[in-house]
Amino acid sequence: MQKEQVGNVMSRRAFVGGSLIGGGAFALGGCASPVPSAGPCGRRVRFKLGIARYTFWKVELEKALALMKEIDCHYLGLKEGSIKYDASDAEIASYKAKLAKYGVETLSAGPEYYKSAEQARALFAFAKRWGMKYVSVVPYAVCPGREDKWGPGNREESEAMLDVLESLVREYDIKAAIHNHGPDIPTLYPTAEAIGARIQNRDRRIGICFDMGHQQRAGLDPVAAVRKYGDRIYEVHLKNITRPDSEGKAIQGPRGVLDIPAIFTALADVGFDGLALIEYERDYDNNAMGLAESLGYYRGVIDALNRL
Amino acid sequence: MQKEQVGNVMSRRAFVGGSLIGGGAFALGGCASPVPSAGPCGRRVRFKLGIARYTFWKVELEKALALMKEIDCHYLGLKEGSIKYDASDAEIASYKAKLAKYGVETLSAGPEYYKSAEQARALFAFAKRWGMKYVSVVPYAVCPGREDKWGPGNREESEAMLDVLESLVREYDIKAAIHNHGPDIPTLYPTAEAIGARIQNRDRRIGICFDMGHQQRAGLDPVAAVRKYGDRIYEVHLKNITRPDSEGKAIQGPRGVLDIPAIFTALADVGFDGLALIEYERDYDNNAMGLAESLGYYRGVIDALNRL
Repeated sequence: MQKEQVGNVMSRRAFVGGSLIGGGAFALGGCASPVPSAGPCGRRVRFKLGIARYTFWKVELEKALALMKEIDCHYLGLKEGSIKYDASDAEIASYKAKLAKYGVETLSAGPEYYKSAEQARALFAFAKRWGMKYVSVVPYAVCPGREDKWGPGNREESEAMLDVLESLVREYDIKAAIHNHGPDIPTLYPTAEAIGARIQNRDRRIGICFDMGHQQRAGLDPVAAVRKYGDRIYEVHLKNITRPDSEGKAIQGPRGVLDIPAIFTALADVGFDGLALIEYERDYDNNAMGLAESLGYYRGVIDALNRL
Repeated sequence: MQKEQVGNVMSRRAFVGGSLIGGGAFALGGCASPVPSAGPCGRRVRFKLGIARYTFWKVELEKALALMKEIDCHYLGLKEGSIKYDASDAEIASYKAKLAKYGVETLSAGPEYYKSAEQARALFAFAKRWGMKYVSVVPYAVCPGREDKWGPGNREESEAMLDVLESLVREYDIKAAIHNHGPDIPTLYPTAEAIGARIQNRDRRIGICFDMGHQQRAGLDPVAAVRKYGDRIYEVHLKNITRPDSEGKAIQGPRGVLDIPAIFTALADVGFDGLALIEYERDYDNNAMGLAESLGYYRGVIDALNRL
């Protein structure tokens, strides 16, 4: 995990050997400095770029992996539906081997919405067998009388489910990052603030899977959230959006309203060194070009920050 | 030409109206501030991104234009072979209309290799009728005894052809940017220095079409060249390469050895406000993904520079 290239400039220049998973699979881009060199301002972006599972919910696993190889991206959220949490150890090993063939690694599962201790335990047990250090989650309770409906307000935050989560992070010693989903489900962790208020006195292994787009769609500044909750952010969902409000839709990285350089600066300043997973929620049937452009853009911002 | 978006962050935020050519063709990305806002450090990248003609030498014009629309890019070097310099005014108008349908503009022709006054005049006459402010060129003489061979050393720099060029930039009041092509043709403007030495006492309308990749392939630092010759650089060829020497081959923007953030910083510092045309000399039959990734990368570097 420490061997990923973070941008390109420092990885090419501060080359110190080392190789990514997949051995000699990468003629280019396969070797990188474990710690990027800092720019003259001393800033270092330490997080790694990957792709969130939902981006590929309509794309068959091997096709998604081939695309990732083509765009030189090496971290993928567990591909939706491509393996079950009750998979055998042999199935997990086989899945990992398939990822490795394309130079891809999966370090976490989720975000997993769950409403029962059994569901949550299945996730943690799977993560433990896989060797994951954290999972991302959305624990919820069903609002009374709305069990059969899926829509705003039918799911809500629940201290009881957080109790379950706290016991699981302790039992398995695996972190859990709760995902903020913006104004669409206002009763269920719409913002980093909503998560922060619930977890501040909880075990520190419970943190935030910070979705910058949904934070902005809720009318809040992602930069402020990163600076306030940085030490509890364990994963980032990286995207851009068309408008800074609830009407905001997904758009290619360079074309939206989010101030990506400022957000990345904040992530560097708080020392975030986990995965920033690109969640590109646009053209699910044909998203290769948009992903290439977006990944390129994020790498460009990172390289510039590390150099300047 | 002043209306292009330079990156995205400032164009979205410092929106002051204005619209690109093509009218309402752009649901997104079509409006931008004519002058990007500066970052806290006061740096402004003023140049505009486009695509050099050679990138598409194997791609039919309409297909190239559709790709440019898909990746939100609005400047294209004159597409190789798609219009002749003796085209009628009506043919030029028709060609421009086709570009405009995709929100694309062509502001210059070249680089045009020529060895006769007649060839050069045809280029300038065409540029004048089109309304171009500059052309890019490689004026040459044939080395004695090598007329029938195309290879290193068969063409050479020529004061006589520069005399012709000087008379044409004066007659037409159109600038000419001489292209450096690196170590492959060492006798014909391999570097910015080679051009600088020949043009320093020439009419200032003769300048440089600065190819950063070829400069590095010649073993020289592109940053130093930009800082030294900045006031004579009228176009930039933007690329990345696999190695910092003559063996360097084209590679996607984020993956090469060039220090793109430092080069863009230098271009901003010298006030370059022309076109930086992406010359992506890789996979000519299938370069859409690489172009998307590269354009995204360059936009990311620009946005970060303007914000920080």
